[in-house]
Amino acid sequence: MHTLNLLLAIHIASSAIRIAQETGIKPLAVAVLDAAGHPLAVLRDEQASFLRPQIATGKARGCLGMGFGGRELARRAHVMPAFFDAINSLTGGEVIPVAGGVLIRNTEGQILGAIGISGDTSDNDERCALQAIDIAGLVADTGDQLAG
Amino acid sequence: MHTLNLLLAIHIASSAIRIAQETGIKPLAVAVLDAAGHPLAVLRDEQASFLRPQIATGKARGCLGMGFGGRELARRAHVMPAFFDAINSLTGGEVIPVAGGVLIRNTEGQILGAIGISGDTSDNDERCALQAIDIAGLVADTGDQLAG
Amino acid sequence: MHTLNLLLAIHIASSAIRIAQETGIKPLAVAVLDAAGHPLAVLRDEQASFLRPQIATGKARGCLGMGFGGRELARRAHVMPAFFDAINSLTGGEVIPVAGGVLIRNTEGQILGAIGISGDTSDNDERCALQAIDIAGLVADTGDQLAG
Amino acid sequence: MHTLNLLLAIHIASSAIRIAQETGIKPLAVAVLDAAGHPLAVLRDEQASFLRPQIATGKARGCLGMGFGGRELARRAHVMPAFFDAINSLTGGEVIPVAGGVLIRNTEGQILGAIGISGDTSDNDERCALQAIDIAGLVADTGDQLAG
Repeated sequence: MHTLNLLLAIHIASSAIRIAQETGIKPLAVAVLDAAGHPLAVLRDEQASFLRPQIATGKARGCLGMGFGGRELARRAHVMPAFFDAINSLTGGEVIPVAGGVLIRNTEGQILGAIGISGDTSDNDERCALQAIDIAGLVADTGDQLAG
Repeated sequence: MHTLNLLLAIHIASSAIRIAQETGIKPLAVAVLDAAGHPLAVLRDEQASFLRPQIATGKARGCLGMGFGGRELARRAHVMPAFFDAINSLTGGEVIPVAGGVLIRNTEGQILGAIGISGDTSDNDERCALQAIDIAGLVADTGDQLAG
Repeated sequence: MHTLNLLLAIHIASSAIRIAQETGIKPLAVAVLDAAGHPLAVLRDEQASFLRPQIATGKARGCLGMGFGGRELARRAHVMPAFFDAINSLTGGEVIPVAGGVLIRNTEGQILGAIGISGDTSDNDERCALQAIDIAGLVADTGDQLAG
Repeated sequence: MHTLNLLLAIHIASSAIRIAQETGIKPLAVAVLDAAGHPLAVLRDEQASFLRPQIATGKARGCLGMGFGGRELARRAHVMPAFFDAINSLTGGEVIPVAGGVLIRNTEGQILGAIGISGDTSDNDERCALQAIDIAGLVADTGDQLAG
């Protein structure tokens, strides 16, 4: 597979929301973007609070825009806060540098897109992303393997 | 029914995209928002161009924010262009005053949310919205019945 | 009287909303601003659509910011559309040039503030503003007396 | 009760402003929003400085948009400053993460809306919010009970 399509994006996003419901964490919003950073599916559990879709989109978009998973973005934001402040002023907040933004790769390692999730803690958000990507037979890249 | 939930929103948005595919019109983006104007499902056919999700969302959000279907918004924008210019400066473009934004009502007439579609002509966009709402057993309000 | 206070602003805004309810027009949002253009009371009938408070505020703020009632702003916007487009780009849409924005003057003619109303037609919006100002013993300035 | 209406919102907001006047703290602005984040009543004591209504609105809107009272938002902003910086670039400053933003729940625990107050210290702002919600027979959620 070399690109995400809408059906697969709905499948991934729906899986993540269902996993949250089944494991009793807070209701989620999920954004699945293509490799160019444009939305394929943005879904909000009707119980999730209303800023969540925007935050989910920002998590995914930041990963694609910078080329790293959310954990690497978080590490860099911790070390270089002024850089990330400037990026967010520049882009209108397109880079949300926390866990829960995950690059979606195919089994050859090519970036197909990204998922961003918001609603519970960043760790729980990310856990749902990882499971949903796994169910779809694709490879998650949280940026964690880049840690020194 | 008194509120839209996520499953119904996905159903409506997916129907509209499928109808476009089956009838050979251009690929669509579709936004289904709850009555308060917050997104439940924003879907983009992977073949649709990338501004379409934002435009679809603006069509739906404008209907809910002003309380009229897109055809009534279009009529008013034609008569009062300075008012609509000002609203769009004020809201950052939240009111897209053309057909293809449709209020979704229940059979008692209550507003449950709205759908906005972008991708083909406004008339074709709206046709897909009407069919998708009809398939879901709900009532479409384009604003057309308000015409004098 | 030389300034509006909060109690009077609540009184004027509540009157306008009640008048709309009693005369069967659509539910309103009403903004009452002091002479400096800052809000004292912004009220939204819970049945009014959600962009109405912003529009009501823009109508009132435009009157104070330019020094004319909404009817004079509308006339000027009709004659000089590029000027009003530029103003709204400049100010982020702070000037909504239609009826329903009304300067509030004391009996000596001094500007105490302004009211902006949105929800029904501009004419009906303005009618509620005029009655509410009259009930408060103050003088409405719609800009209409400036017409040639 | 399942929704706030305008009369109740005016009642709550007016109570908070009166409590501030009677207890000799600084003059306040108060925003009461419905559960979807849209304003019902935004009031400013005519002695309060002019940014207060916007700040009060941001406190209430952030609570609803994220699903937590202001004290929980403040704790999270302390731990995750880059996340909150990014959210505020993204949303144009809709999340003011300090005390003085309080969710309003009914006695069954459902969120009816939120109040945001600005004018004195965050602690004093919040105290007025709590009393005003209590007078209305509703339940305040500051986010404080989420502290570990």
